[in-house]
Amino acid sequence: MNQNHPLLVVNFKTYLEATGKKSVDLARAAEGASRERGVIIAVAVQFTDIKPVSEAVEIPVFSQHIDPIRPGAQTGHILAEAVKAAGADGTMLNHSERRLKVSEIEEAIEIARGSGLRTLVCANTSGVSAAIASLGPEMIAIEPPELIGTGVSVSKAQPELITRTVKKIRDVNASTQILCGAGVANPGDVERAIELGSEGVLVSSSVVKSKDPGKLLAEMADAALKGRKLT
Amino acid sequence: MNQNHPLLVVNFKTYLEATGKKSVDLARAAEGASRERGVIIAVAVQFTDIKPVSEAVEIPVFSQHIDPIRPGAQTGHILAEAVKAAGADGTMLNHSERRLKVSEIEEAIEIARGSGLRTLVCANTSGVSAAIASLGPEMIAIEPPELIGTGVSVSKAQPELITRTVKKIRDVNASTQILCGAGVANPGDVERAIELGSEGVLVSSSVVKSKDPGKLLAEMADAALKGRKLT
Amino acid sequence: MNQNHPLLVVNFKTYLEATGKKSVDLARAAEGASRERGVIIAVAVQFTDIKPVSEAVEIPVFSQHIDPIRPGAQTGHILAEAVKAAGADGTMLNHSERRLKVSEIEEAIEIARGSGLRTLVCANTSGVSAAIASLGPEMIAIEPPELIGTGVSVSKAQPELITRTVKKIRDVNASTQILCGAGVANPGDVERAIELGSEGVLVSSSVVKSKDPGKLLAEMADAALKGRKLT
Amino acid sequence: MNQNHPLLVVNFKTYLEATGKKSVDLARAAEGASRERGVIIAVAVQFTDIKPVSEAVEIPVFSQHIDPIRPGAQTGHILAEAVKAAGADGTMLNHSERRLKVSEIEEAIEIARGSGLRTLVCANTSGVSAAIASLGPEMIAIEPPELIGTGVSVSKAQPELITRTVKKIRDVNASTQILCGAGVANPGDVERAIELGSEGVLVSSSVVKSKDPGKLLAEMADAALKGRKLT
Repeated sequence: MNQNHPLLVVNFKTYLEATGKKSVDLARAAEGASRERGVIIAVAVQFTDIKPVSEAVEIPVFSQHIDPIRPGAQTGHILAEAVKAAGADGTMLNHSERRLKVSEIEEAIEIARGSGLRTLVCANTSGVSAAIASLGPEMIAIEPPELIGTGVSVSKAQPELITRTVKKIRDVNASTQILCGAGVANPGDVERAIELGSEGVLVSSSVVKSKDPGKLLAEMADAALKGRKLT
Repeated sequence: MNQNHPLLVVNFKTYLEATGKKSVDLARAAEGASRERGVIIAVAVQFTDIKPVSEAVEIPVFSQHIDPIRPGAQTGHILAEAVKAAGADGTMLNHSERRLKVSEIEEAIEIARGSGLRTLVCANTSGVSAAIASLGPEMIAIEPPELIGTGVSVSKAQPELITRTVKKIRDVNASTQILCGAGVANPGDVERAIELGSEGVLVSSSVVKSKDPGKLLAEMADAALKGRKLT
Repeated sequence: MNQNHPLLVVNFKTYLEATGKKSVDLARAAEGASRERGVIIAVAVQFTDIKPVSEAVEIPVFSQHIDPIRPGAQTGHILAEAVKAAGADGTMLNHSERRLKVSEIEEAIEIARGSGLRTLVCANTSGVSAAIASLGPEMIAIEPPELIGTGVSVSKAQPELITRTVKKIRDVNASTQILCGAGVANPGDVERAIELGSEGVLVSSSVVKSKDPGKLLAEMADAALKGRKLT
Repeated sequence: MNQNHPLLVVNFKTYLEATGKKSVDLARAAEGASRERGVIIAVAVQFTDIKPVSEAVEIPVFSQHIDPIRPGAQTGHILAEAVKAAGADGTMLNHSERRLKVSEIEEAIEIARGSGLRTLVCANTSGVSAAIASLGPEMIAIEPPELIGTGVSVSKAQPELITRTVKKIRDVNASTQILCGAGVANPGDVERAIELGSEGVLVSSSVVKSKDPGKLLAEMADAALKGRKLT
């Protein structure tokens, strides 16, 4: 996943449309779109679904979270080694629905790395994005508060919301892959997010609740490639 | 699981000896001991292992925790429906390593029930045990602080530690199954815990880290039956 | 504060109208209404205001929370001994804006008692109210979820919302004083809450943001006495 | 407090020796040492003691924590405006005993600034220190995990533990004042911490539990000035 290849990540959250057998179906749709268009699409699934999804598809499978813990007496927690053993390639961390303390993020990144899991860390503001960038995750998903939960799409927002954050991250970290993690619901948003300097997108309900997720992801993949050429 | 049948629950925690493929091996050993001795043995496994363990064995499989959430936008959380879809029969709640707020316990019990999951709620003192009993879980595991993490076994502790808590629970709840969840490391402890009025035990590292977990569980099952006759 | 004397508690929360010097003014208004009408009115103020308010008035002053900690290395936490030394008579616990784990509630009640602080524990449902009642606090404020944050007042709600909870609490605890902690904004609500079996009320923004809090509290005190006669 | 003036901060934590009236006595001892030696000494006291301490002394008084909240319905939380109204000049944030989420730290710094409170943010590792430095607090206290809670003093530790962290902070923030927040128990430690590039120290139990805190602080102040000359 270098910067020449845009990355689409689909967060399955805890939607029933993406739970159990349906998580496998949705992951297969993502895999189909990925093969067809030559764009990497990763899926971030619930813990219980990591193993069946990993066995069913060859695209990258992410956990939605790990706890900053070592193996042992930690009932009910998420162990990096367990997530890896189930087949995950990476993990999300610090999603706005599952925030972590700053010392926990650093420790979880270190533990994930030791277990062979790549990390995709979410950040809400440009300041927090820079702070997290200095902790060295492989990927950062930026979620400008002006775009999150407001229904405002990135293609209609002020360009500075993205470009300023990208610049602040690059000042402290040259290699982390930057995704746009809010305000992306359709192919036009994907194209715009890439044009503005992000190297991928993190999407969720628009795909999970789509009547034809494979088709929508294929269109988003095309849009990502188009946005790439324009930059 | 009525009160004539003692119940053994093995908490796999996040021990590496009980992660991934090893979780399936350990669950099979528990299943073997259960069949051999006619005592119900349940296993509480990590989220990622619920599906493979449920597919491999016929004994009850428990989740170690669920979050008090409904399906939806809850990245990185544990959904009752997902745990059930993966094959779990029940879930632990409020383990000393994963404490919950009192309103969360009530809500999680209700959600678990709606998803067809039985609940095993842990409680640290006799007062907390009574409080939780009034919320109506199917099972309570009592963990007297005098026994937890001190290496003191229930068979050497003052009998009142258990009998008083059992009585306080029965005052508010006639039907919940009461397990002894601390100070139980060997067959003698199991026998004593049952004699004192508990209807099962919750064990962990003694079994998980045993060289021959199946043999130890078979001996614990015998001890549970023996303790039952003495009461 | 026995059951013959209804109790009004004013929660100052973190409203600016009840911060710093204004907290002293508001407490004095409550003291005036209390003296005038012969009804006990207590004020639950911010930590920083406990000392100046306690020095200014003779009515009971409560802390809004304490942490279940002992003196020592606990930077940034709320110590029972500090709250007591500042002049508090009691403390709220488990308010819906500051929920606690069940084991923390038990421990905080014990610590408060050891420091000479009475405890007023909030509970959201009838089930949780019964659970908390078994932990033995001096007072319980019940906050039926049907009334909280919905603008529905107790005087228009179904009577069972209160009477059922009062009964469940009395089944396990004969002496705790039961307050109605939601849906109370005007004197009519106070009267109705007392009629339905509660022995006091917990109010907040209606008083804190009132143009004349002393007058409103005096009217609420009258209503409480009136509701008392009707029961 | 510019970099030519070393800063000593005494964290009172929740020690009984620094609660209520004793907090005022201890603050006066710190004020005496500060005047005598011409070194700024600040005290971080419990919330309930901010007002009496602020009224008794003229040295800077810090809160030990604030919550990232605005005025309103936030029962039991710490409001910046309340802390300021009580007389505080600044606040600690993210102490190892009161960790915050990264987005909370950014928000709390912004809120503190808006209320006229300076911020002293603690950080456990060099990575976390750099992350926090990018959020722009006035002061950072670094607490190398190799020094915290192990009894190892900074004067016997590898110099790189401090110098590396100072460098990482300076790479992203030229103006924040850097304190050494672990491994400092006596005047020799203070001198060494300053020599290694920190611009002050954060001390606690060594001073709070000292038989003569004023004398110890005076010696620490001398040591800070001495360490300053050597750099």
